Amino acid sequence: VNVAIVGVGLVGSEFIAQVIATQSKKIAVVAVANSRQFLTSPTPLTASWKTDLASASKAFTLDAFTASLAASKATNPTVVLDCTSNENVAAYYPTWLEAGFHVVTPNKKAFSGDLSLYKKIKEIANGAPGAPLVYHESTVGAGLPVINTLNDLVNTGDKITKIEGIFSGTLSYIFNNFSTLDASAEPVQFSKVVSVAKDLGYTEPDPRDDLNGMDVARKVIILGRVAGLDLTQETVNVENIVPESLRSLSSEEFMKKLPEFDSHFEKLNKEAIQNGQVLRYVGLVDPIHGKSSVTLARYPASHPFASLKGSDNIIAFTTERFPSPLIIQGSGAGAAVTAFGIYSDILKIAERTQ
Amino acid sequence: VNVAIVGVGLVGSEFIAQVIATQSKKIAVVAVANSRQFLTSPTPLTASWKTDLASASKAFTLDAFTASLAASKATNPTVVLDCTSNENVAAYYPTWLEAGFHVVTPNKKAFSGDLSLYKKIKEIANGAPGAPLVYHESTVGAGLPVINTLNDLVNTGDKITKIEGIFSGTLSYIFNNFSTLDASAEPVQFSKVVSVAKDLGYTEPDPRDDLNGMDVARKVIILGRVAGLDLTQETVNVENIVPESLRSLSSEEFMKKLPEFDSHFEKLNKEAIQNGQVLRYVGLVDPIHGKSSVTLARYPASHPFASLKGSDNIIAFTTERFPSPLIIQGSGAGAAVTAFGIYSDILKIAERTQ
Repeated sequence: VNVAIVGVGLVGSEFIAQVIATQSKKIAVVAVANSRQFLTSPTPLTASWKTDLASASKAFTLDAFTASLAASKATNPTVVLDCTSNENVAAYYPTWLEAGFHVVTPNKKAFSGDLSLYKKIKEIANGAPGAPLVYHESTVGAGLPVINTLNDLVNTGDKITKIEGIFSGTLSYIFNNFSTLDASAEPVQFSKVVSVAKDLGYTEPDPRDDLNGMDVARKVIILGRVAGLDLTQETVNVENIVPESLRSLSSEEFMKKLPEFDSHFEKLNKEAIQNGQVLRYVGLVDPIHGKSSVTLARYPASHPFASLKGSDNIIAFTTERFPSPLIIQGSGAGAAVTAFGIYSDILKIAERTQ
Repeated sequence: VNVAIVGVGLVGSEFIAQVIATQSKKIAVVAVANSRQFLTSPTPLTASWKTDLASASKAFTLDAFTASLAASKATNPTVVLDCTSNENVAAYYPTWLEAGFHVVTPNKKAFSGDLSLYKKIKEIANGAPGAPLVYHESTVGAGLPVINTLNDLVNTGDKITKIEGIFSGTLSYIFNNFSTLDASAEPVQFSKVVSVAKDLGYTEPDPRDDLNGMDVARKVIILGRVAGLDLTQETVNVENIVPESLRSLSSEEFMKKLPEFDSHFEKLNKEAIQNGQVLRYVGLVDPIHGKSSVTLARYPASHPFASLKGSDNIIAFTTERFPSPLIIQGSGAGAAVTAFGIYSDILKIAERTQ
């Protein structure tokens, strides 16, 4: 297949590097775009693509970029790979699909935003013979086989009872370090852990964009929709753990004032630990009771969520066939694993269209 | 796709039940065979298939069964589903593939037996456009997404550093119950745990067929081969935990004499626990040092293998992109989850051939 990439930041660049390194015979990257300009090529791009793109003369618009792909689509199945996190690009998927392009993306917007956009995409990419394909494994847990596994469960008629997981590498890191039953671990202040995570580049530039739970909520919405529920931001109950009085401050003031709330988090943590539990920030899809949510919850030491390390993600599917849940865990963020998920998705399209 | 099933024991029957229950539009079961007779049908089989098969008049041979599928293959892509654990059926895969049938199976024999058979299968089912397809997700960990995930890692150029796991539900159950750091757990004798596992139907009729490690070795060989290594039963080092003097006894005598070795296992367990570790029977694929093995090993409490419950399987892929391993765990045995893996495999073939 030919691949045309919109967005060549860390993930897009890493994907191209993986394709070049593996000398893939199934994938040819034939177009790349950033927000300013784009480049199309009759032959697969080579390692010099960054320089070539920088000197490209074509101004980027979604329409101009799409028009330039007509030649590619005429000769080979062509995948548009959206490596932005842009809402306008997501809104363009139906146009691409109707024009016969396949779509692969780690961008969560189309699958967690307007329900009407999601339904439109599913209507066009409906799995019928010849219909265009959409894969978005990397929208949840990066390259971890989460979406594909859930699709397999649903498509074979399993009944999903519960999907529960730690979907934010940032919040995984923060609570794995803040809340532990390991008696030998140094006790640490919540604000300090957040500050270290920020310095390590694990958080968004403003850590409140992690702590407000919206990123986790998007992942809950995506999983819920794949499981057949019409979840939206309004129907998922999100526990925003940013103290209310810190929500409208500047980012600097927020970091400065967060220590004032250390005793609040310390109290929550102590209550948990005294009960042999730890705090974890989890997303829940609950088809049975219809109460999907994002909450700061408590888990006993024997629970797989309690022994999570570093910034790993973990997800547990409880189903009719898996009453003891099917669990997937591992690195759920970073360019290498996100690009791995993208690469796997595109290989699946290559296999299905060959 | 049309599906022709050889072997309709628990797993084959459960697969048909799942297809009927989900009213699949993509899958039509058009032939079933047991070791004595077979039945082909111009229309998809219905719930009465067992009675129909019992009164079928055609005597089963692999050649006769295959000849009867010519009409099916002429109209639709046709998958032969091998639900036996038979070596002769496995040896027939090249014949089916060369005749243009696809193959799906939970039977481990073709992928863990003669290396030449495995290579012949890979030569025919090589992923080239139009080549027949072979899927065998359920050969390791039943329906857990183990083989597909490993294939994705390999096909996208990741470097596998280590594959380590608990691949036997039986031995998972035995050691999860025998070796635990939970101080409140009743201490239990090894022979007693084996006996309970046998009574619950978790073991083979002769538990030595689990304890000798050969089933785990087969799974190590399969994973190693998918990862690109030419593993064979000769190159995998297997720790048979059946005491030597009990290996040639009758099954009854074995169960009667096993208690004489309780102190041996108790000593191993105590040594582990005094070091804050538990015993687990693990398979290891080791591409770096070339020392793939099956051993009774020790893991600290914080390791994901230590908190495994029931008879769950767990598998950890350590790779260049996942230095903190990608871990999959859950039920790895039983008809429902094995049939789920088969069903998912066949849907993938349906998607690739539509």
